[in-house]
Amino acid sequence: MTVVTFTTDFGLADPYAGAMKGAVLSLAPDATLIDISHGIPRHDVVAGALALAQAAPYFPPGSIHVAVVDPDVGGGRADIVVEAGGRFFVGPDNGVLSLAAPPPRAAYRIESAFFRRDSVSPTFHGRDVFAPAAGRLASGHAAKDAGPPMPAIVDFPMPDGGTLRDDCQGLVLSIDNFGNLLTSLVGVGIEKGLWEMTCDGRSFDLLVGRTFCDVERGSLVLYVGSSGRVEVAVREGSAAALTQARPGTQLGLRRRS
Amino acid sequence: MTVVTFTTDFGLADPYAGAMKGAVLSLAPDATLIDISHGIPRHDVVAGALALAQAAPYFPPGSIHVAVVDPDVGGGRADIVVEAGGRFFVGPDNGVLSLAAPPPRAAYRIESAFFRRDSVSPTFHGRDVFAPAAGRLASGHAAKDAGPPMPAIVDFPMPDGGTLRDDCQGLVLSIDNFGNLLTSLVGVGIEKGLWEMTCDGRSFDLLVGRTFCDVERGSLVLYVGSSGRVEVAVREGSAAALTQARPGTQLGLRRRS
Amino acid sequence: MTVVTFTTDFGLADPYAGAMKGAVLSLAPDATLIDISHGIPRHDVVAGALALAQAAPYFPPGSIHVAVVDPDVGGGRADIVVEAGGRFFVGPDNGVLSLAAPPPRAAYRIESAFFRRDSVSPTFHGRDVFAPAAGRLASGHAAKDAGPPMPAIVDFPMPDGGTLRDDCQGLVLSIDNFGNLLTSLVGVGIEKGLWEMTCDGRSFDLLVGRTFCDVERGSLVLYVGSSGRVEVAVREGSAAALTQARPGTQLGLRRRS
Repeated sequence: MTVVTFTTDFGLADPYAGAMKGAVLSLAPDATLIDISHGIPRHDVVAGALALAQAAPYFPPGSIHVAVVDPDVGGGRADIVVEAGGRFFVGPDNGVLSLAAPPPRAAYRIESAFFRRDSVSPTFHGRDVFAPAAGRLASGHAAKDAGPPMPAIVDFPMPDGGTLRDDCQGLVLSIDNFGNLLTSLVGVGIEKGLWEMTCDGRSFDLLVGRTFCDVERGSLVLYVGSSGRVEVAVREGSAAALTQARPGTQLGLRRRS
Repeated sequence: MTVVTFTTDFGLADPYAGAMKGAVLSLAPDATLIDISHGIPRHDVVAGALALAQAAPYFPPGSIHVAVVDPDVGGGRADIVVEAGGRFFVGPDNGVLSLAAPPPRAAYRIESAFFRRDSVSPTFHGRDVFAPAAGRLASGHAAKDAGPPMPAIVDFPMPDGGTLRDDCQGLVLSIDNFGNLLTSLVGVGIEKGLWEMTCDGRSFDLLVGRTFCDVERGSLVLYVGSSGRVEVAVREGSAAALTQARPGTQLGLRRRS
Repeated sequence: MTVVTFTTDFGLADPYAGAMKGAVLSLAPDATLIDISHGIPRHDVVAGALALAQAAPYFPPGSIHVAVVDPDVGGGRADIVVEAGGRFFVGPDNGVLSLAAPPPRAAYRIESAFFRRDSVSPTFHGRDVFAPAAGRLASGHAAKDAGPPMPAIVDFPMPDGGTLRDDCQGLVLSIDNFGNLLTSLVGVGIEKGLWEMTCDGRSFDLLVGRTFCDVERGSLVLYVGSSGRVEVAVREGSAAALTQARPGTQLGLRRRS
């Protein structure tokens, strides 16, 4: 049974995610449908791209991933299917698929009537284009049957501060439900020690740990998170509340001992 | 595999939706369970009816739709199954099913012990009546086996301001996650142009477009939405925040050019 | 098809729940995945244990229940599988599984490499230990293959004020989306009548009913809830807002007529 996932900024109160799922199941009744998130901040294409890139690698080969954060729906951007790393990605060509589907990849414009609903609402391609396309893929149809190949798609450069070094700069990429800061820095073999973090002109002491449990409750800790990136957290507290950092905030990180 | 959907005001934090799903799977282990919404405003039967009516038509024939917005659970209203348009609807007879299941339809009172849990909590018919009934339908049992036919069910008249004309009145039916206003007006072949909208004594200019992208960021736009109804939005903003409209607010719409 | 449920404090905006589900489906592609809740208050192990205990009994025999409320992830607590009452429970050994899986039970430490991801993030055992363990169980592997048996697990004593009597004390266990108070008191055969409830030094009149519908809109009602426990609600209102009670608040209950 093929897995189809959903990543959107629709929220969960409205019937939009449900209508999309109905449209997939109408074409692929045996598909297994899984939500990655419908809580992407409205119109935040980068946040959607990051969320999808964090979860998609854990799904089985052949899985299909629909992402709809699409402020320009009905405008000029293309509707696309991307095949990369043995998985399929379906959504608007605005970068939302690009971090989860890095090159090498094959991309196709969804133009075949067979991959679209007969009547397409200009404001709801999620239901009328992306869901039908996912349904066709889930039924075994080839991505190349969706439409003409695209030589390139809109690509976000993945924000990358490089690897954490003893004195370096990074960026907050996102903040999770626990108030943990996910940074643009990759962490490899960081030794324990005391660091200083500067953030919007303020300065904080923090310890390097393997996990939250390496510091006292309420203390800041820096560790390599589950996505391989450097994260900053407060044990049983919120690093976002303590530091006032937001997505996009610059962080300075300096080893002190 | 039969699809069973859920539309409730239970929220997602409590274990109630999960318990309902367990009760369905205990009788129909192969069912595919899909949430339409658990975020219907508490006790808002009309909002539940509208959400269900927006999503249900996109599900496959034979699908089963449970809706529980039920402020009078355990009181006098009947528990019912409705068959309409090749789909099945299960819930309290308080109107919540009526917009998604318009006539012609057949309705049955859920009285057979085979369609109910042995012991029914007076406060949780979702788990003890509607979920078992959905489980039996999903296992192939006929709706008419649920209990005696009902000659009529509680029917909301669908709020209908008719078709958008050059000078007309409508009603805000609901407001979505994007702050878009869904109105009671149906839109057919509206030409582009400048309109004036009055709302609680205030007046706004807005353009008719095919989609948000036809106006500047931050501007009001009127278009025919994905449900066939007239909607009012602000591109990458919130029409609800700008206009202060709420469900039930009267709108005046007048073409100016 | 085996059912796997999830109860966490991850929230629904982040991609964490999705990544866990991908990890389960990678090992058990035919599993049916169901959310009990991802809205457990952060780090509130007792609330997670209560939610799981309210929903799990309604799932079919053989179902697998993953619960991750895990403030000490990566610290000293064990990763465990518990078999009880014909169901399986997977999570940290911090009590979160204990109320849903009362004795008699068998518990095993998840140590087998076959039940864990090759590389385990110290901060995300949900994805790298509990999801793989659930995937193996869902594929038919025995709980005892997860690792060595544990003679005991961390057990919450279920808060229990005993049975409601004419003059007694109880505890608020949790407050649901409707503002209803779930208490520690069990209710058996309570007769209708007028009671007095004291709460944080304030006093309230309330009626015993079978359901909300037995009182006027806006009035307090005491009834035996769908979990067999005594609950206090306001019909079409919020008992939590009216009484200011919170989880842990002591309640005095005294029959007056």
